[in-house]
Amino acid sequence: MNFASDNAYGAHPAVMQALVDCNDGAVMGYGADPVTARATAALREVFEAPEAIVRFVATGTAANALVCAQLSPGYGRIYCHRDAHIETSECGAPEFFSGGGKLITLPGDAGKLRPDVLKEAIRIGAGEGLNGGCNAMVSLTNATELGTVYSPDEVAALCEVSHAAGLPVHMDGARFANAMASLDAAPADVTWRAGVDALCFGGTKNGAMAAEAVLFFDPDRAEGFDYRRKQSGHVFSKQRFLAAQMLALSESGLWLDLARRANCAAVRLAEGVQRAGGRLLAPVESNAVFAEIPLAAHQRAVAADAKYHLWPDASAERLDPVPVRLVTSWNTPQSDIDGLTAILCGET
Amino acid sequence: MNFASDNAYGAHPAVMQALVDCNDGAVMGYGADPVTARATAALREVFEAPEAIVRFVATGTAANALVCAQLSPGYGRIYCHRDAHIETSECGAPEFFSGGGKLITLPGDAGKLRPDVLKEAIRIGAGEGLNGGCNAMVSLTNATELGTVYSPDEVAALCEVSHAAGLPVHMDGARFANAMASLDAAPADVTWRAGVDALCFGGTKNGAMAAEAVLFFDPDRAEGFDYRRKQSGHVFSKQRFLAAQMLALSESGLWLDLARRANCAAVRLAEGVQRAGGRLLAPVESNAVFAEIPLAAHQRAVAADAKYHLWPDASAERLDPVPVRLVTSWNTPQSDIDGLTAILCGET
Amino acid sequence: MNFASDNAYGAHPAVMQALVDCNDGAVMGYGADPVTARATAALREVFEAPEAIVRFVATGTAANALVCAQLSPGYGRIYCHRDAHIETSECGAPEFFSGGGKLITLPGDAGKLRPDVLKEAIRIGAGEGLNGGCNAMVSLTNATELGTVYSPDEVAALCEVSHAAGLPVHMDGARFANAMASLDAAPADVTWRAGVDALCFGGTKNGAMAAEAVLFFDPDRAEGFDYRRKQSGHVFSKQRFLAAQMLALSESGLWLDLARRANCAAVRLAEGVQRAGGRLLAPVESNAVFAEIPLAAHQRAVAADAKYHLWPDASAERLDPVPVRLVTSWNTPQSDIDGLTAILCGET
Amino acid sequence: MNFASDNAYGAHPAVMQALVDCNDGAVMGYGADPVTARATAALREVFEAPEAIVRFVATGTAANALVCAQLSPGYGRIYCHRDAHIETSECGAPEFFSGGGKLITLPGDAGKLRPDVLKEAIRIGAGEGLNGGCNAMVSLTNATELGTVYSPDEVAALCEVSHAAGLPVHMDGARFANAMASLDAAPADVTWRAGVDALCFGGTKNGAMAAEAVLFFDPDRAEGFDYRRKQSGHVFSKQRFLAAQMLALSESGLWLDLARRANCAAVRLAEGVQRAGGRLLAPVESNAVFAEIPLAAHQRAVAADAKYHLWPDASAERLDPVPVRLVTSWNTPQSDIDGLTAILCGET
Repeated sequence: MNFASDNAYGAHPAVMQALVDCNDGAVMGYGADPVTARATAALREVFEAPEAIVRFVATGTAANALVCAQLSPGYGRIYCHRDAHIETSECGAPEFFSGGGKLITLPGDAGKLRPDVLKEAIRIGAGEGLNGGCNAMVSLTNATELGTVYSPDEVAALCEVSHAAGLPVHMDGARFANAMASLDAAPADVTWRAGVDALCFGGTKNGAMAAEAVLFFDPDRAEGFDYRRKQSGHVFSKQRFLAAQMLALSESGLWLDLARRANCAAVRLAEGVQRAGGRLLAPVESNAVFAEIPLAAHQRAVAADAKYHLWPDASAERLDPVPVRLVTSWNTPQSDIDGLTAILCGET
Repeated sequence: MNFASDNAYGAHPAVMQALVDCNDGAVMGYGADPVTARATAALREVFEAPEAIVRFVATGTAANALVCAQLSPGYGRIYCHRDAHIETSECGAPEFFSGGGKLITLPGDAGKLRPDVLKEAIRIGAGEGLNGGCNAMVSLTNATELGTVYSPDEVAALCEVSHAAGLPVHMDGARFANAMASLDAAPADVTWRAGVDALCFGGTKNGAMAAEAVLFFDPDRAEGFDYRRKQSGHVFSKQRFLAAQMLALSESGLWLDLARRANCAAVRLAEGVQRAGGRLLAPVESNAVFAEIPLAAHQRAVAADAKYHLWPDASAERLDPVPVRLVTSWNTPQSDIDGLTAILCGET
Repeated sequence: MNFASDNAYGAHPAVMQALVDCNDGAVMGYGADPVTARATAALREVFEAPEAIVRFVATGTAANALVCAQLSPGYGRIYCHRDAHIETSECGAPEFFSGGGKLITLPGDAGKLRPDVLKEAIRIGAGEGLNGGCNAMVSLTNATELGTVYSPDEVAALCEVSHAAGLPVHMDGARFANAMASLDAAPADVTWRAGVDALCFGGTKNGAMAAEAVLFFDPDRAEGFDYRRKQSGHVFSKQRFLAAQMLALSESGLWLDLARRANCAAVRLAEGVQRAGGRLLAPVESNAVFAEIPLAAHQRAVAADAKYHLWPDASAERLDPVPVRLVTSWNTPQSDIDGLTAILCGET
Repeated sequence: MNFASDNAYGAHPAVMQALVDCNDGAVMGYGADPVTARATAALREVFEAPEAIVRFVATGTAANALVCAQLSPGYGRIYCHRDAHIETSECGAPEFFSGGGKLITLPGDAGKLRPDVLKEAIRIGAGEGLNGGCNAMVSLTNATELGTVYSPDEVAALCEVSHAAGLPVHMDGARFANAMASLDAAPADVTWRAGVDALCFGGTKNGAMAAEAVLFFDPDRAEGFDYRRKQSGHVFSKQRFLAAQMLALSESGLWLDLARRANCAAVRLAEGVQRAGGRLLAPVESNAVFAEIPLAAHQRAVAADAKYHLWPDASAERLDPVPVRLVTSWNTPQSDIDGLTAILCGET
């Protein structure tokens, strides 16, 4: 029973098949191959963005950090939520790639930035002079690190604040598919139509082996990006294998199907957690459940070798109830959800 | 009337004279000159540290950022107070010099880190795994950014926590002289005897033109530091002129005299501020006064072209009382202090 | 007919099968999985190095640049051949990862560094003082960028020069398998027994999809390397898929079989090129043929859409004979070799 | 007798006086002071460039590296002469500041780039694709590292080649004054009128204590430069002291007078060297003499403790004749020149 992360499970069979299918013959490397062209076209169609620059990398950290470096100079201020993955979980990658960019972290309920808080922070930043660095960009995550989802209107409100200050907006979409599965909207509605300038569209957590797409909706924003990708070792020689994964997910609508599955699993799991006396810490809007559970329930789960993370860090173990993060994926067995529920409830 | 910063005033005449005195003749550049040797010896004596590696640079940001890069890898976590100069006022220099180091900022009253808060933060950081980066170093400022002063015992307590976790300690001593003038202790007591590994000893705010000394009390910590200094453009060809300034300050005890003057000016100013209905926001232990003053008093001061900063940023102007930062220097005229007091009190 | 690069062909079926085989079930991410453990063990066995630190990344540029950053500070001098991949083909990745390291490029016939040239360069570097930066490391490529192979004795001679100056040695082994297939030696003989400190062992050109192993033979050299890998976005969440590729190649000896195939194809191709009036520019010791071919032959090949690169760059097209680089792979069809030969000879 | 560098001598009395003169009173820091305004105006007048952005730093390495970072991204190719100071003498500063920029070094007689060689190198670079990085900028030094001087026409020819490829041109003018003293032209003729985009105008070697000016003739090129300067620790709080030095040199024409003195001293020295049997290795056009001198003469000079450098490095000591670099300054005593001549000639 693994609820530690949505990367605990492997790749969807269709992704595997796509890798096998594109394995024959010789093609030119570094992206000059037909699979890359097809995957690019497929993503442009998904996003109704025929001019978008689309690039593929293997990890979410690479995608996010490369975009941060693209949108912020080394002396830039990068505004994000204090729980943002780029702040908490990328080992300083945005700082490294950008040459020293400073993440300005902001509070906000349920993992979400608030327009008024953002606006005030940007205002203060603008007054910092040389000492504080230069306002550079805003980064938001959808679905958020707390499993909540920004609506198109919410994204638009944040982008409006950002753009009013001349700052481009990056969306970390490691779980963008889960956000879309939760919304009644088109991908374009939550991204470029709402003002997002660059999106990291995650494949890995969505059923790929290791593949993420970076989309620049305004091609001018992508100038030099390929060199940046190369210089950081993120251009694959046999790039068709990255592209094939994203193609398999995006061409057929599979990405949404898989995200819906993961989201449904989370809803079911949330019900179980609540049945076991747990209290949700954030609305379950994508594929994660944040909850406080009774210490006894947690101890039973640990004893049964169920895997998940304490939240926000391991020191939570000393608390009762214990705050935990449980993540479901496209491939989480229903039996595992029911099994964990039973354990938490003390029914086994 | 300038209370904006202790860098508003120029250099002490003795510093100027020292520059003139060392101007004659030809010497080898880049530090291979007799003035550098004398200044090094003088500082070793001040700190009772005959083995210390002593280097000179021209700005505090350079000194701090170079030491951060020396003590932390690019993937390091650098613990500091949330008001630390390296966090708020160096435009991302520590991140840039270190290649992406992440500043982990901690709360603490009156600008001071607390050992228990530091210990807990280090503990959490150690559990972050690759995502959070690697615990690397602790930085503390003395006198602090709030004008308070760490005692030898307080420094020792923080160093003990740091060293217990294997982390070296950097002291940002841009106003180290002001701290010493406030303490009944030897420079060694507040630095290496208390556990500090590297000190940035500020000359600029203390009466130099532009000169800071970096001291590594354990010579092994300084390996490669000269290359780092050179690669960042901080090795002067005519280095004697940097060294001469520090020599003039340190050889004669002038550094302490000047700091005492500045500290006394702050005490007098604090009295005036309180007389004008102001309330101190932090104890006045060095050469800065943080206070809330009545809006009307502030407006009178602005009208009289008195220069000082709102705190923590310009948005404070909308408040009544107005939080402000007033800094005195070795050369602040007593008449300016009395003049500002009169204005704040509405007596002119 | 694609002789542009050994990355033109896909992955070997056994590699594909290994990916499929490890796809089931949930495992912990970031390397804490059983496939990673098995692949690590397999590589340690191949290299008779039970203590070696083994890490997996997806690209050769990442592997090389990470090792350069590991072995050289930002102010370091990195000695390499002037045709070294790290110099000519990685878009400044070693400079970026290391924070400014300077590649000192040296001449040498057939892509090989010479011990006497290296020794003299290191000697000069040591005398450069701060201006020139600090001697840091030596990097050599085996098989070289000219398709030649260093023998164990040749490697040992270079390592001896390096170590005598205190400099660690990195081997770029993007085509290490091809080198081994050409030598009558054990992998350990050409690496750690000869003095190599860190090896980038290429899988991608050898039949993997995208996988390289980094081996530090002295574990102390690897301190902090995982953070470095994470900070640059090169830690895969589903790392088993990287490890599975290297496992498939290394566990069974497949890596050597495939390299032998590629090398044999090169020998056969070299014969064809010579029959067509071409003149070899370097001995054919691995899987590349560098030759001058008659302009007319080149023009026939271009007309037939045969793909290969001019050498050292596209400006060579103006010459007659034309210098070219032809690369074979584990999967280059014999019919393509014979076909190209016929075209070059004007027999079709 | 010190001919090691033009930084061996101190500051001109007028520079010292300017420091003293601006020492009184309190002014705002970081450049918001009247001396900075006056120095800026003076330099704009010298260069007939009323719109130029003018900034002050303390070292030539800082000036050059900051401009390289301003004009080149991390993945950029920076074209320069193989003897360029940025290549040989700045410890990788351009690479560090730019985040990995690669210096592409070109041959050329007497320290000068040739337009045809530059054009061909840029052409090759443009064809390198991602592997080679992106053509970014051209850097040339005037006076050159070999003491020769580019004429306005020569500069214009190089700028034309650069601009035709879309690349901006940086001029390292650490000895720009010496170049101007040698030419019958206006400063504007050798810089912006000839196409130079950014100039580092050296004060330190010209009689300042430690001061260099950076001029961007097109203000758009300077966007963000102040943040860059701050982030690297090169913004002085008491900036008037930097500006005052450049003001003293530039306001009065002193810079040209001092450079003429240094140049005349070099001519006289060159005569002496030739009289002693030396052979000039480059025309003496500024304040340096590159020559081969008889070993015996060199040994006499060493015995008399005369200071100068072997060229290009210390290994030259094994040769007879010995190649040497002798540098004169605004303050080199004529008696030292005559004294060295006598020693070299064996007349003492």
